Amino acid sequence: MVPRGSISGLLSSYDPKRLAVATVCSHTSLQIFDGARREGFRTIGICIGQPPRFYDAFPKAKPDMFFSVKSYKEIPARAAELASMNAVVVPHGSFVEYLGVAAFEGLRLPTFGNRRVLKWESDRDKQREWLVGAGLSMPEKIARPEDITKPVLVKFYGAKGGRGFFIAKNYEEFMEVNPTEKHTIQEYVIGTRYYMHFFYSPLVNRGYRLSRGSLELMSMDRRDEANIDEMYKLGAQERLKQFGILPTFVVTGNVPVVLRESLLPKAFWMGERTVERSFELFGGIIGPFSLECIVTDKLEFKVFEISARIVAGTNFFVRSSPYSDLREPEMSVGRRIAREMRLARRLKRLDAVLS
Amino acid sequence: MVPRGSISGLLSSYDPKRLAVATVCSHTSLQIFDGARREGFRTIGICIGQPPRFYDAFPKAKPDMFFSVKSYKEIPARAAELASMNAVVVPHGSFVEYLGVAAFEGLRLPTFGNRRVLKWESDRDKQREWLVGAGLSMPEKIARPEDITKPVLVKFYGAKGGRGFFIAKNYEEFMEVNPTEKHTIQEYVIGTRYYMHFFYSPLVNRGYRLSRGSLELMSMDRRDEANIDEMYKLGAQERLKQFGILPTFVVTGNVPVVLRESLLPKAFWMGERTVERSFELFGGIIGPFSLECIVTDKLEFKVFEISARIVAGTNFFVRSSPYSDLREPEMSVGRRIAREMRLARRLKRLDAVLS
Amino acid sequence: MVPRGSISGLLSSYDPKRLAVATVCSHTSLQIFDGARREGFRTIGICIGQPPRFYDAFPKAKPDMFFSVKSYKEIPARAAELASMNAVVVPHGSFVEYLGVAAFEGLRLPTFGNRRVLKWESDRDKQREWLVGAGLSMPEKIARPEDITKPVLVKFYGAKGGRGFFIAKNYEEFMEVNPTEKHTIQEYVIGTRYYMHFFYSPLVNRGYRLSRGSLELMSMDRRDEANIDEMYKLGAQERLKQFGILPTFVVTGNVPVVLRESLLPKAFWMGERTVERSFELFGGIIGPFSLECIVTDKLEFKVFEISARIVAGTNFFVRSSPYSDLREPEMSVGRRIAREMRLARRLKRLDAVLS
Repeated sequence: MVPRGSISGLLSSYDPKRLAVATVCSHTSLQIFDGARREGFRTIGICIGQPPRFYDAFPKAKPDMFFSVKSYKEIPARAAELASMNAVVVPHGSFVEYLGVAAFEGLRLPTFGNRRVLKWESDRDKQREWLVGAGLSMPEKIARPEDITKPVLVKFYGAKGGRGFFIAKNYEEFMEVNPTEKHTIQEYVIGTRYYMHFFYSPLVNRGYRLSRGSLELMSMDRRDEANIDEMYKLGAQERLKQFGILPTFVVTGNVPVVLRESLLPKAFWMGERTVERSFELFGGIIGPFSLECIVTDKLEFKVFEISARIVAGTNFFVRSSPYSDLREPEMSVGRRIAREMRLARRLKRLDAVLS
Repeated sequence: MVPRGSISGLLSSYDPKRLAVATVCSHTSLQIFDGARREGFRTIGICIGQPPRFYDAFPKAKPDMFFSVKSYKEIPARAAELASMNAVVVPHGSFVEYLGVAAFEGLRLPTFGNRRVLKWESDRDKQREWLVGAGLSMPEKIARPEDITKPVLVKFYGAKGGRGFFIAKNYEEFMEVNPTEKHTIQEYVIGTRYYMHFFYSPLVNRGYRLSRGSLELMSMDRRDEANIDEMYKLGAQERLKQFGILPTFVVTGNVPVVLRESLLPKAFWMGERTVERSFELFGGIIGPFSLECIVTDKLEFKVFEISARIVAGTNFFVRSSPYSDLREPEMSVGRRIAREMRLARRLKRLDAVLS
Repeated sequence: MVPRGSISGLLSSYDPKRLAVATVCSHTSLQIFDGARREGFRTIGICIGQPPRFYDAFPKAKPDMFFSVKSYKEIPARAAELASMNAVVVPHGSFVEYLGVAAFEGLRLPTFGNRRVLKWESDRDKQREWLVGAGLSMPEKIARPEDITKPVLVKFYGAKGGRGFFIAKNYEEFMEVNPTEKHTIQEYVIGTRYYMHFFYSPLVNRGYRLSRGSLELMSMDRRDEANIDEMYKLGAQERLKQFGILPTFVVTGNVPVVLRESLLPKAFWMGERTVERSFELFGGIIGPFSLECIVTDKLEFKVFEISARIVAGTNFFVRSSPYSDLREPEMSVGRRIAREMRLARRLKRLDAVLS
């Protein structure tokens, strides 16, 4: 982990009037660049080799300049170049995945949010410690495959978009796969899924106030997953094994949703507890995070995952969301991040939102 | 039922310039308050105990004041207090459910819409009498469990968000549940679901005109239901019984949809017939209502339910809808209700939209 | 096919200042009329008999005038009347289906887009020749029913909204239906579906540039299909046959979606190749087209169909789309067509976008 002091030192060498938002050209970069520009920041797209052409089709979201690397692993070694451009990194899931957790933690560039969150997010046991410690309800964890007495989901570590996850209804089905990779066995909770996109601001002291700062709900989506979402169309899952067709959980896109309004108080309570607990554990989660929940037919939430940064499910809401519109029009999560940076700059508190 | 004259009398004691929109803090209250404010009304949030904090996160939708009760049952006894604040009630599904039909009917406060609709909506037999009498097609009703020869849905009375509903494919499956509560057995029609949000205005005499007033289509959604929507992911339903997992139909949220355009003429015809018949039966349905339909693969509509007020499926459309945008921008159903009140006030015809 | 010269001749008799956008009152007509008006064109709604009343509910999308015919087949014979009104036809799926391919090809009216695309689109073998020739990946084609060794989808020719399509998992299941109509047997690829709405402009030479012109991504949807989408709710498909319930694929509406951002470069590549190949084959596809894809759990695209004009999935996006908003606000595909006509008129190149 890069020592906090060194980022503060780096920041003091920056020209605050010329901060540039930098991120990897993928995941949620369109809204990050669009949002940064709307808040008056320059933008830098980090890409492998030639700049991706698809930004040409989205002029409002095309970064002001591209920073080309041979591989994402090269970014840490070239951090000084980015620093010379006053670059502040806005991390997203692909950014972290491409770099690796350790490299991201050690990156000598100011990054939006608290990078201490990473070790709590990337390890499923620590995630559980955090969320359960916050008072949230999670799907039951099954200690050993022998203990499987009801449907379970077997999940691997790290943000891989669901690749390799599988369902088992008993020990035998688990052993058919018998995974060697590090995994966790969770009760498969049945219900409907809501991916709730929150934003915690340590700087704004109005609105939904926490012990410090405030909490906003930006939007919600439901992930599309191949091939679990549509394989039912071929008939009973059990009969598809003969064709080598098994359920898989690879994220391919997102559908916008809204939650039953009577559940919002509980949703906010969950967001609040998650933030408060994060302060106790590691100095706080800053900015966007997502609680990924199943709502059961008893109207109970089961959180199956937390993403501690901007999630791809916000991509539908680049201009408008049923939730953020009730606060301020045209506020995407990408723009909200840039707004927080602008506010921090004005308050001379950039170190409160960058690490 | 409170006599109509008494509400008219009450209204004559109101200061029309200071009308306040009041509703229970749940269901669709965010858009009701946001919409009321946009049309220039004060807003009152009726809540149990302390005001819910989640409104703090939605400043545009936070009511101007809260009216705290110990239980919703207390509202009728405290109606005079609300009346002294010039409160007009905008009812929604939770409001009616929390109060109970009889208490709501007798509530001594002006309420938006015609409260005579309640007894037609809350009784599934009368709903059928209304809709079938209007010429709409509904799923076939099965008189006795012994007559089940194809898949059926067994539904209970009242707006409980689908709780307890179950599917049976034959008499034996029905008898496994053997419900004692008042229920109805309907053919399970297969197709895709569209919840069409209409607005009938008795005051506007342009647009899609009826024998009196006019009809608007505001938006459409599809309800999320736990756990029927996602339980297929575990494989054949039939094999899940051993784990105690049965299909349930509890509404947890909503997904936005649009309908095939060639079906709109029929959709409007259905809305029109529903309104016209309501005048013959009980003096007319006023304001928002929703026809909840299955479209079959023969492109026929089967209406399985009517909601005679604002429905939660409109919550996605607080700012924008593919349908209402073709009439006027930024028109939610919540705002449309307030707009109608404003128009009625200007025309000195508040009694035409309140009861 | 009407000779290109004759349309050019017809156009030279038109008053370019008084062009009117004409289309059949169905499918995507609301956004076509709304968009045309926003770009300053008059609008003509072609209808059978009395004008449909539902436009009254959508004042922004109501055509300036109706052109009533006894049957759509009558349109070609009355083309001169429409021509005298300076009518330019914007074709949509229903327009082409109602007229028939041959009649549409011979229609003596300027139509938006290149009508030579029709014979490539309406024949599934030629579609495959086009798309596979462009380098796109399609579901494998099965030559004979005897070769079915995995799940397949059997599709009929022409744009019938999926009617009659069926799934077979082996030869026996195919023979249970044993279709006599012209059909094609395709591997049933499992994944999640994205209907990507592109717009190719031969006139705009900035943005995502092709060898000539440029490519835009407007929006994406997923089609609702009755009854395949919801029949799983009754339990295993295999057990529903006894009730005569079989999967069907009739389009009833649309749900909005976004695609995983990391797949956009490939999506654009596919759109680009489709356009470039169309120039080699038949002089180019002009204006809107849709690539209808499955994304597999290996994050590969399989294109199962191309629609060579505006598709109904764009109907959700009459005002706003997560993609088009990053180019220009309030740009629907209907409006984009009108914008292209306006640009072509200004450049005196109407013949580049009409045929």
